Amino acid sequence: MNAKAETRSISVEYDLPHPPANVWRALTEPELLAAWLMVNDMRPLVGHRFTFRAEPTPWWDGIVHCEVLEIDLHKRLSYSWRSGPESSRLDTVVTWTLTPTPSGGTRLTLEHSGFLPANAYAFDGASEGWRRMVGERLREVLAQVA
Amino acid sequence: MNAKAETRSISVEYDLPHPPANVWRALTEPELLAAWLMVNDMRPLVGHRFTFRAEPTPWWDGIVHCEVLEIDLHKRLSYSWRSGPESSRLDTVVTWTLTPTPSGGTRLTLEHSGFLPANAYAFDGASEGWRRMVGERLREVLAQVA
Repeated sequence: MNAKAETRSISVEYDLPHPPANVWRALTEPELLAAWLMVNDMRPLVGHRFTFRAEPTPWWDGIVHCEVLEIDLHKRLSYSWRSGPESSRLDTVVTWTLTPTPSGGTRLTLEHSGFLPANAYAFDGASEGWRRMVGERLREVLAQVA
Repeated sequence: MNAKAETRSISVEYDLPHPPANVWRALTEPELLAAWLMVNDMRPLVGHRFTFRAEPTPWWDGIVHCEVLEIDLHKRLSYSWRSGPESSRLDTVVTWTLTPTPSGGTRLTLEHSGFLPANAYAFDGASEGWRRMVGERLREVLAQVA
């Protein structure tokens, strides 16, 4: 059994009525990104290291450590997503793919991959969290992007 | 292999310079308890159901569901501690034991039991979290309890 076989991914698709250029802005501009996800110092440059920061809880320091892995302007964005204590650390990858639709909108796919069995609690939290963040809050932010 | 054999516990001991009656107050009075742990509606009555509430994050609703299981005034307090999404749900038990010390203080032990392998991420978070909550913040609150 290899390591890859033991990991799980979250994969979701959204049809958005906004063009890829606008969706790209909401994924890569720190202020827009913060408005639907978390405070961050994202820059869309391969190799750039940045963090997302949520309110800490008694059980989580609230910090996600990221590095940009792949950029294809308006088409594809990938970054590492690491968080949590050493022994059960999330060491995962988030990949966004943007495809223009005939109606001028965007088919947005999110893949969050690399969850180990020991990350099951985080996996379930993220499954529900992305649904709410992307399915609800990103849509609200996009409605305000010119 | 039975279910019990597959679970893990967090177990920690603290020597506190305060008498058991004061430590008991900090464990059972909602306002004192909130000052070092989380907002709650605890009442030290067997069968009482209550919640702890932290700031929600994108990945956790911030709610811990509890029920008081055992009360032995100034000596022992136990409650269930359930949180998280259905499939990787924490279904654990927190038990506090207070023993008077010859110097008039309290030997406080915390056992947080019932972590499944799928709860590893939460287990590590709680291990670090209790250290900080009890080892630092509870001590600060106790310093202010007459």
